[in-house]
Parts: sequence; C-alpha cells; structure tokens
Amino acid sequence: MKIDGVHYRTIFPAEDGDGIMVIDQTRLPFAFALLRLRDMDEAAQAIVTMVVRGAPLIGATAAYGVAMQMRADPSDASLAGAIRRLTATRPTAVNLHWALSRMERCLSAVPTSQRAERAFAEAAALCDEDVEQCRQIGAHAMTLIAERHRETGRPVNILTHCNAGWLACVDWGTALSPIYQAHDAGIPVHVWVDETRPRNQGAALTAYELGGHGVPHTVIVDNAGGHLMQHGKVDMCITGTDRTTATGDVANKIGTYLKALAARDNGVPFYVTLPASTIDWTIDDGVSGIEIEERAEREVTHLTGLTDSGTIETIRVVAPGSPAGNPAFDVTPARLVTRLITERGICEASRKGLLGLYPERRAAAE
Amino acid sequence: MKIDGVHYRTIFPAEDGDGIMVIDQTRLPFAFALLRLRDMDEAAQAIVTMVVRGAPLIGATAAYGVAMQMRADPSDASLAGAIRRLTATRPTAVNLHWALSRMERCLSAVPTSQRAERAFAEAAALCDEDVEQCRQIGAHAMTLIAERHRETGRPVNILTHCNAGWLACVDWGTALSPIYQAHDAGIPVHVWVDETRPRNQGAALTAYELGGHGVPHTVIVDNAGGHLMQHGKVDMCITGTDRTTATGDVANKIGTYLKALAARDNGVPFYVTLPASTIDWTIDDGVSGIEIEERAEREVTHLTGLTDSGTIETIRVVAPGSPAGNPAFDVTPARLVTRLITERGICEASRKGLLGLYPERRAAAE
Repeated sequence: MKIDGVHYRTIFPAEDGDGIMVIDQTRLPFAFALLRLRDMDEAAQAIVTMVVRGAPLIGATAAYGVAMQMRADPSDASLAGAIRRLTATRPTAVNLHWALSRMERCLSAVPTSQRAERAFAEAAALCDEDVEQCRQIGAHAMTLIAERHRETGRPVNILTHCNAGWLACVDWGTALSPIYQAHDAGIPVHVWVDETRPRNQGAALTAYELGGHGVPHTVIVDNAGGHLMQHGKVDMCITGTDRTTATGDVANKIGTYLKALAARDNGVPFYVTLPASTIDWTIDDGVSGIEIEERAEREVTHLTGLTDSGTIETIRVVAPGSPAGNPAFDVTPARLVTRLITERGICEASRKGLLGLYPERRAAAE
Repeated sequence: MKIDGVHYRTIFPAEDGDGIMVIDQTRLPFAFALLRLRDMDEAAQAIVTMVVRGAPLIGATAAYGVAMQMRADPSDASLAGAIRRLTATRPTAVNLHWALSRMERCLSAVPTSQRAERAFAEAAALCDEDVEQCRQIGAHAMTLIAERHRETGRPVNILTHCNAGWLACVDWGTALSPIYQAHDAGIPVHVWVDETRPRNQGAALTAYELGGHGVPHTVIVDNAGGHLMQHGKVDMCITGTDRTTATGDVANKIGTYLKALAARDNGVPFYVTLPASTIDWTIDDGVSGIEIEERAEREVTHLTGLTDSGTIETIRVVAPGSPAGNPAFDVTPARLVTRLITERGICEASRKGLLGLYPERRAAAE
C-alpha cells in the first residue's frame, strides 16, 4: 500500500541485488525507515527483534533468509543449518514453519548449483502468492462493506482489533484488505481502531497504515468498542486470526473475544478474515485445544513512545512492585463469528462452512 | 486505609484551618503527595483535572468547595454561583449533584452568618457517612467472597475494573471494601486488576492501593479478562458504578460492559457495589438515558509514567496525525448484573430489588 504516495511492499529484493529490503517496524509509527538485510543471520535477527512481524511477513522473511544463505553456500549442510536457525527465531509461529518447510522441500530437490536462483524465485513466489491471497480475501469481504453501504447510504463504520494490515503481510493485509479496496473503490468507510494493549499494534501500526493510505479512522481504547456498538456506531467488526480451528473457533490477539461478545449482544456482524494457512485442521475446540502464549510482564508494565521533545522514551505505567500477567491471545468461539472470509470466499464459522470452501479436506475430516 | 503504615483519608480539613487537604491522585502511583485546596475554585479545578476522582470523593470535594466559598462569601448569590460552578465540573457524576443538592438544601435554610460553620460541619458529616457506608457495603459484599471460599477451599479470584477503592472514596472504597475486609479477616483473595485505559486507574491506583495494603493482585490489560474467565481463573467480578438507574442499569468506567458480557458468557457472577447516592431514580433506561462524557483525545494518545532513570515523562503512543475518540463511561444493562450491593444489603439489579432495599422510594416510583 502507499506511504506518502509511494507504493511499498513490506519486503522486497534490493534493486542493486545486495540482500533484501524490509520496513523497520520497530521504528513505526514515529519513523519510516527501510532496512537492508544482507544475509541469513540478519534475516533471523530481524524476526527475533520484531523488525518484521505478522505471520505472513515472518514467513516471507524466513524464505528470503534461506535464499540468501543459498547464495552464500548452497550445500545440504548449509540448507539444513539455515532451516534450523530460522525455525528457532519464533518457536510458536505456525506460518514460519510452513514457509520454511516449503523452501526445504523445494530446494532439496534441486542441485546445489541451481539452489540460489531457485530459492530467490521461490521466496518471490511465496510473497506474490501472499499478496494475491490477501487481495482475494479483501475482494470477497469488500462485498459485505458495499452491501452495508447500499443499505444505509452512509459511511460504513468498521471496528478492527490489532493489526491485520499490509504491515503484517507483504501487501494488502487480511482484515484491512477489504477496507483498502472499499476505500479505493469510492465506498465511504471509517475505521474504529482498537489500540490493542499491550503492544498497541492498533494505535501504532493500524492507525499508521490507514493514515498513510488516507482512510478515515479514529483510535479508541480497547474498552470503548462495546459502548460504540450499543449506540449504533459500528456497522461491522473485521479482524484477522492467528489460528483458526477446523470448527471455526478463532485464536486472535487478546481482547478479540470481548469485541465478539459485544457484537453479538448488539446485533453487529463479526467477520474474521484469514488465509487458509492459518486453519489448524487438527483442532476442534479452540478454548481447550489452543495453547495461549504468556508473554513478558514488561509488555504490560511499560510503554514506548514519542516525547513532546521528539525523543523515544520507555515508561512504566503500572504501580511499582505490582506484578502483571500477559496472555497474548484469546479464543473467540465460532458461535460468535458471523462469517469467516478466506481467499476462496465467505463461509459460516463451522466445520461445514470451512469444508464447503476446502472440499479437499473432506476425506481427512471424515 | 494505610500508606506506609499511616492511616489516611483521601480528603480532610487542613489542621491549620487553611483549606482542605487531598491526596494528589495525578501523581500516584509514582509519588504520594498531599495537596492543599484553598478555595472553591481550587476545589473545582481539582475535580476537573482529576487530582481527585471517584464519585464519592468528587462529591466530598464539591461539598468542601461549597464550604470554602461560604467562608469567603456566605451570600445567596455566592452559594448559587458555587453550586453552578461545581456542578459543571463533571457532567456524568450523579454523586456530585447529590452532594451539591444536599449542601444547597442544608445551607439555604441557615442565616448567612452561620453558613460557613454549618457548611464545614455538613461536609465533614458527608465524609463520615461515606466512610460508614463504604464499610457497610464491604461487610455485605464480603459474605459473597466468604461463601465462594467455603465452596472452593482455595483463594478467591476477583476481577475488578477501574478504581473503586478507598482512593475513589473517603476511605474503604466500594468494590475494594469487601476485598480489604475479606483479606483482613483471613480469607485468601487474589485480585485481577484491569489496567483501565485510557487513564489507567487500575494499573496506577487500584494496584497501588492493594499493594499498599498487602493484598495479592496481578495487573492485566483490559483485553485479558474474557480469556481468564474462559479458563476458570475468575470467581467473580466486583466493580463500582458512577450512576445506577432505578432499574439497575450501571454506568461505570468505559469497558465495564465488556467484562459483564464475558462474565455472563462464562457463568461468572458480576457484582456491582454502590452507595445509594449513585442511584438515579429518575432514569429507567441507562443506555438511552445516561449522557456519556466524551473526554480529551490526549488521554488516549498520550501516557505518563516513570522512565528507567526515574523521571516522569509523557509519551505519545498513537500514530502521529491519527485522531482518537474517548468516551469515558459505558452502560452495563441490569440483565448482566448478578447483584447490586449497597450499604443496606444485597439485591437484584432491578426496580423491584432496589425498592426492596429502599422502600421509602416506593411511593415516588408508583
């Protein structure tokens, strides 16, 4: 999407051929800077330090990490080492494993002399496919926004939680893709951006993205969405998901469940957008079956931002001596999800709905 | 309650007779400082800037504001002007109106020569009554904690939102009063403290209070409560209320409604504690009938806290250029409230329940 009128992807090969370029997301929203990753180690480091984040983008960065390693040393040992090293960067990221398995499968079938070229081509294909999937998700979900606009004749108010935008992917995003597409098509939209404590991905990244592309939006604290829905100020919720069960339960950023409850209580549709790669066909009950990562206390007790004098500072906001808990995700049961929207279309949040879009999974499910 | 072993109230007349003393709550939890309010204007300013906050404490501060104005000028015009000025400080706070009406009623019957003395006596009486009411609320609500402990034989996990502790009152608090009383009685309790964005009264004040009194607690982001309830980690929710309708709807800090929805979805009791003064007998439907204060954008976009080097800094956390919305309260419909607990006892959140505790209101209601 655009920043200051220039179109970017979050990751792309450097024009001069020396490594790959990424947007340094640790400096957003206060500074926009591209960072060059010159080798596999720098790619691994960028994932660990969250210079890049978001499941699809992590996968893409790891794929390019493998490619850069193949250029340096295309041997079997080097390939195995790169896979090992990159896998260890974010042990729980499902998409990372998926991308690395794909690279490994593709490259082990290729003679070492052709591995570097093939690896860059595969990483590029992986990125292009991500862009295309996100575009398709957006095209499907946009029909729901357009329909709402036809019904009401006024701007469509959409609430989103966390960042499921282009910064988390290669381009477009998942939850934000239909919003960009509606905006670009001239359908008036306004986005309520949940701050998304503790890491504030909404206030920092979603707001930055939407502002950069010129989409009207308002940042709110995570507490506010229920009140807005009670007063008819939200036409629909659209979120992403980190992991979706075969039955349509959705594990997403902590707090998603509360918004889904409020949506249900107020008759507001709650849509979840996802590429098929986030569906975990092995899990039926999300609440009991999905292990929730407990992250560092400091993410809750401290915040980083910009002082009035222009420096970046980190402050403690919790009473000194008080401990903090930090579960990173929660599970929204399928019963609260109005529809799932994937690259293949729109379906009920149920096993039946998902198998309707992915009939090739039917044999395994029965 | 105690700070460093010394017992304080949140508001009291200065020993030297020059104005009144309050705890400057804008400096908590990083510094404990008393602030002297010398006249009515300073009292009004303290309410507006949230040096004092919490419904009962706002009422007490307004009462002393009137008293100081009566010392400066006990005329009818001065009394009317003080009531007007103080009423305008916080539009949603019903307790403020209640305290000011009481002062006005009391003082207009008194000759101007006696108004100052009478006003200070009435403000002091109002404070003493608040302390006793909070003690009674706590004694009633504590029976629910004790019962839960008897049922489970393990520490009782209580989730609370915002700060309805002694810092919001004159002493004891409303929602935290039963927790202090249970803890002091040897019933093991653990409190999940909602951070309570945007002003972080949970992370800053509730955590500070509980820490000061030695009550085990854990600060969580506002997003986390639903997940904890899904996993059986919350035995009950207890909150305060800024305004309660005659039918039991509860207007409280923004986000309370989301926790009540999660409690209902998980079979967790949701208790609301209140003194009778927060009941607005004139309103039946909270969602349509209670005006919700929209506060400054900067409360959402900026946070203040302590740097590692020990200075207090304010930082921006929202993407520059992005606007923010800041509704301060939301309304939890009575259907989601398990019980109301007042100084007179425990009742259903309904007109019938409230009239059972306040039969003197029956004639007016019929």
